[in-house]
Amino acid sequence: MISFLNDYSEGAHERILDKLVKTNAEQTIGYGEDCHTEKAVAYIRKALRCPDAGVFFVVGGTQANLIFISHVLKPYQAAISVDTGHINTHETGAIEATGHKVYAVPSADGKVTPRQVEEVLAFHHGDEHMVDPRMVYISNPTELGTIYSKKELSALYDLCKKHDLLLYIDGARLASALTSVQNDISLADYPKLCDAVCIGATKCGALFGEALVVMDPVYSQKMRFSIKQKGALLAKGRLLGIQYEGLFEDDLYLRLGEHSNCMAAKLKRGIQKAGYSFLTDSYTNQQFPILSDAVLAKLSENYLFSVWGKAGEDKSVIRLVTSWMTKDADVDSFLRDLQNI
Amino acid sequence: MISFLNDYSEGAHERILDKLVKTNAEQTIGYGEDCHTEKAVAYIRKALRCPDAGVFFVVGGTQANLIFISHVLKPYQAAISVDTGHINTHETGAIEATGHKVYAVPSADGKVTPRQVEEVLAFHHGDEHMVDPRMVYISNPTELGTIYSKKELSALYDLCKKHDLLLYIDGARLASALTSVQNDISLADYPKLCDAVCIGATKCGALFGEALVVMDPVYSQKMRFSIKQKGALLAKGRLLGIQYEGLFEDDLYLRLGEHSNCMAAKLKRGIQKAGYSFLTDSYTNQQFPILSDAVLAKLSENYLFSVWGKAGEDKSVIRLVTSWMTKDADVDSFLRDLQNI
Amino acid sequence: MISFLNDYSEGAHERILDKLVKTNAEQTIGYGEDCHTEKAVAYIRKALRCPDAGVFFVVGGTQANLIFISHVLKPYQAAISVDTGHINTHETGAIEATGHKVYAVPSADGKVTPRQVEEVLAFHHGDEHMVDPRMVYISNPTELGTIYSKKELSALYDLCKKHDLLLYIDGARLASALTSVQNDISLADYPKLCDAVCIGATKCGALFGEALVVMDPVYSQKMRFSIKQKGALLAKGRLLGIQYEGLFEDDLYLRLGEHSNCMAAKLKRGIQKAGYSFLTDSYTNQQFPILSDAVLAKLSENYLFSVWGKAGEDKSVIRLVTSWMTKDADVDSFLRDLQNI
Amino acid sequence: MISFLNDYSEGAHERILDKLVKTNAEQTIGYGEDCHTEKAVAYIRKALRCPDAGVFFVVGGTQANLIFISHVLKPYQAAISVDTGHINTHETGAIEATGHKVYAVPSADGKVTPRQVEEVLAFHHGDEHMVDPRMVYISNPTELGTIYSKKELSALYDLCKKHDLLLYIDGARLASALTSVQNDISLADYPKLCDAVCIGATKCGALFGEALVVMDPVYSQKMRFSIKQKGALLAKGRLLGIQYEGLFEDDLYLRLGEHSNCMAAKLKRGIQKAGYSFLTDSYTNQQFPILSDAVLAKLSENYLFSVWGKAGEDKSVIRLVTSWMTKDADVDSFLRDLQNI
Repeated sequence: MISFLNDYSEGAHERILDKLVKTNAEQTIGYGEDCHTEKAVAYIRKALRCPDAGVFFVVGGTQANLIFISHVLKPYQAAISVDTGHINTHETGAIEATGHKVYAVPSADGKVTPRQVEEVLAFHHGDEHMVDPRMVYISNPTELGTIYSKKELSALYDLCKKHDLLLYIDGARLASALTSVQNDISLADYPKLCDAVCIGATKCGALFGEALVVMDPVYSQKMRFSIKQKGALLAKGRLLGIQYEGLFEDDLYLRLGEHSNCMAAKLKRGIQKAGYSFLTDSYTNQQFPILSDAVLAKLSENYLFSVWGKAGEDKSVIRLVTSWMTKDADVDSFLRDLQNI
Repeated sequence: MISFLNDYSEGAHERILDKLVKTNAEQTIGYGEDCHTEKAVAYIRKALRCPDAGVFFVVGGTQANLIFISHVLKPYQAAISVDTGHINTHETGAIEATGHKVYAVPSADGKVTPRQVEEVLAFHHGDEHMVDPRMVYISNPTELGTIYSKKELSALYDLCKKHDLLLYIDGARLASALTSVQNDISLADYPKLCDAVCIGATKCGALFGEALVVMDPVYSQKMRFSIKQKGALLAKGRLLGIQYEGLFEDDLYLRLGEHSNCMAAKLKRGIQKAGYSFLTDSYTNQQFPILSDAVLAKLSENYLFSVWGKAGEDKSVIRLVTSWMTKDADVDSFLRDLQNI
Repeated sequence: MISFLNDYSEGAHERILDKLVKTNAEQTIGYGEDCHTEKAVAYIRKALRCPDAGVFFVVGGTQANLIFISHVLKPYQAAISVDTGHINTHETGAIEATGHKVYAVPSADGKVTPRQVEEVLAFHHGDEHMVDPRMVYISNPTELGTIYSKKELSALYDLCKKHDLLLYIDGARLASALTSVQNDISLADYPKLCDAVCIGATKCGALFGEALVVMDPVYSQKMRFSIKQKGALLAKGRLLGIQYEGLFEDDLYLRLGEHSNCMAAKLKRGIQKAGYSFLTDSYTNQQFPILSDAVLAKLSENYLFSVWGKAGEDKSVIRLVTSWMTKDADVDSFLRDLQNI
Repeated sequence: MISFLNDYSEGAHERILDKLVKTNAEQTIGYGEDCHTEKAVAYIRKALRCPDAGVFFVVGGTQANLIFISHVLKPYQAAISVDTGHINTHETGAIEATGHKVYAVPSADGKVTPRQVEEVLAFHHGDEHMVDPRMVYISNPTELGTIYSKKELSALYDLCKKHDLLLYIDGARLASALTSVQNDISLADYPKLCDAVCIGATKCGALFGEALVVMDPVYSQKMRFSIKQKGALLAKGRLLGIQYEGLFEDDLYLRLGEHSNCMAAKLKRGIQKAGYSFLTDSYTNQQFPILSDAVLAKLSENYLFSVWGKAGEDKSVIRLVTSWMTKDADVDSFLRDLQNI
């Protein structure tokens, strides 16, 4: 079986793995106070051109989300998210478990618009019988594979600043956004466009790892207390440092993101050529073609993918995900089989 | 510098590392639903002779503790722990953050006695103005290096069952307890002596990993929901499976525990011979000698260790921790230097 | 100014007040363990013909909701509610503050349908990456003044039982539902139609008070621990007992509900006669007429009411609420003024 | 039976009750936005000579404690309390239920000393593996009937300010402290001696009511959101306003406190004269005499009181509580019976 199920089906890029092997016998201080972590922090601050940024490595994305959100919100404050947002539907109520409401707004393309935020604020209008919306949570790319343009993100962040809202970007697949052919936002732009971003590595070359980057030191303060309390302060913290060192000492992170995008683009072209349409127009590593259930039954004999939902009586949207490690041959094989059905 | 700071200063045992390298290119289902995890679960069930046990792998010990405790307790229920218990003092209030009081009882040797539990129950006597103590949390070995005898543990568990309390054992260093010269409790005894045990690997040969083992399926039910909600469902869950596979496919886990104990015993003998006493009489991989501050100042030029507390005007208790990877030569060096001071 | 703002603008019915005055010098045991509370519990059990019901008096509705929901749900479980549900929008995230997601479904008339519940279950399909919906929360009357028919409620509860969901009814205005001309559900029917109901008195004759009634003793167990923990165990608990005694020793509770409905019906008829339409077709003590903003500006000189939302460019929906104490003359005055505008 | 069980056995002082009756038919805005509440706030600000103070009325003491503590602490922060502190032992883990550890220190007289606070800080030393102690919680009078002198309280608050800790005073029985013959702290002193104080009325003349007074507006901000979220925003909020109006429009609050102290002092003198000793030297309305179990058995035929604990083989400490309504005759009767045994 060839898997397009997700982008965490394999281990780590060989450079990462090599580094882990080579450093294995080193004795280091625990909990991320080692020299590898220090270096990785420096690389990321440099990439973002934000020397004051708080950079915190944790193992998983749900951890990053729940730690940042619960760290900065007051008990009665809430985060706004699209209905398909990861914190709204795929983290088992992790944010609510820390006491905060996720206020969901509908979205066809996975993005929050400034207008929606304004409507949410108008609806709540400072009424103490309702939660106090204080954060906008977005993903880039979104769960639907789309990305924000610089103009869109700027408009959203301007509105956030106007209303004293925090803008937090979940970048579980940020490598794919950064290297999308549509993208016009560089890593160095992020500090001007949001309050915090999570730069994911689990889905881009590492065994695991998410870098929570907080621009203003005010919101970084005592973050390690929250990280420890939520069970996310890794004893051998260097494992995170070493992996991010490997990804950011040159442009490996971006190259891997680019590879996954190329593989996805090839899938997209092939599927379009075969006459199928898509749920969204994605230029990142997730593609959502709409295929007939008969075709899907056939494909599922040799390929793993997830069914996203129904699209009429005998059609379904599926999700195909490529990764930093997806093989050209596997894409070819998929397209060939699709054509032959 | 040679470190006796803790048992998570190095990477992983080479067999574990090899396995990670060899399996790196495999495509597996995420979130611990892969074949490696399946095998690891089977190994652990077999080692415990408990085919129904729920076995859940998570990355860290605080995660295991907060997940199990919050999963099984009702909102108004509390866990009893010794004052030096890890959940009471070294997890930044992680248990309280899930809503539960940790009721601490004093202890000189790190162990909870049946009598203390009875006193806590008598004090609370079902009064709804107080919490409802429903769990006893212990560590084996304790934070002070001591271990429970089978007789002690049986007495404690009998009391727990009599009063409908759950007994949960934090085994972050269980390998060291299992292989202590004082030990008379085998892994296969645990299902009869507690409701759940966490078998730690972070401190015994793995890069990371804690296996939460829950004996009665009633308490395992929907555990994966809690694991996900707390941010502890590892995307590449196989990393945990592969490591536990490596540790439990033969007796590697025990051999590594034994090694750390041998190194600790050697330290103990040498320090005793040099005329010093200890805070507790430990036969596991943590030793707590009492040394003069002058001697400590000298030792700290070449060795890392933690100061546990003062012991009179110019003396301190320090903690020396050995690991599965501690070198004989490093222990020799420490003892030689101590003698020469 | 005459207020149609809500049904908690005045104090208590005189019989209630008399009882409070007469019992004032009695010395009673605190925290609801007094004889008045005992009697009130007995009256309610009798009215519901449910001798095993757990009956718990608390001061406010948000308390009742958050206590019951957090008492019976596991950390990863969620409650389903309509989007206009009180717990979803008017309790400042009280349920989320106890750790649970409120899963909102849209509704034009304020009611949850069995089909919506089925869709929510199908969407979640036991997936541990999502919350586990385990409760349906409804209000009767709803926030929009509508009520459930016996047939509707039966169908909903049957579905709940089929899927092992709890059905909880927020009856902050239950007196109004019970005495609506449309109603076909008696108090004695409730034990067969839900798992718990809150019988509100704050909005029906008492100074304050909500009776949380839990049908199956399994879910009542140790409820007082939750009540105390959430700060809702009233020291002079008898105040609640005395008030419910007064309301339930005969049919006062129903008579007061009926009065508020009559006043509302009169308002409705008058407004209809004046040519206006309504957001919903309510036969309870909340009416939602749609008036032009010019008319509203005029009315607001002498009357208090809340604006529910816009209804086109220059019209708004307002909410008029009558109470057990609303005066006939005040209704007449309002209708006269409306006609004269 | 005559009750010395507690100071919430009776209803309200007649002036309070009269006010409730007289205002019963008034229509007011809900949730404490009425004119009575406004007046009561003004009275309290004046009594404290603190025009900026945030004054928030809630129904019960546990509510006041959990709301203030959870409102001002960050998730990883903790409150320091004596072991007998109300939040530590008699609120069913209410503070922990909001996510915060209560760090308990031992105390024979119910008071926290500056030295204890320093020791707690030294123990935690900013270590992120432990909670961050950020508040000192005390009661005045303490649970053992003792009170703080101005010198003691100043010393404690100076230390708090030095270490950026908040000092919160639970004054459930503040009237008794303010009017104790030992007392040298006036209401007007409080703003200089703490960050917040709760002025209790439940135990001093009201049906219920606690006034949470927060000195610095920074900590008052959006407090009403927290009050609502925790279910403590009373719909007919005026009930709290009216009662505090009655207590603070002249010196009624103090007179009632004084009465309870006089009754307690009389009990104390009589019991001393009869040759018995006390657990603490209390000059407030709680007395803790040590009596033989035989005597207690006899007394318990006609009097209600609580047994505080054993005091040797056949003796016990009991708690006798007097209230604003305790009758001289009842005290005489108790002392006579004690003498006659």
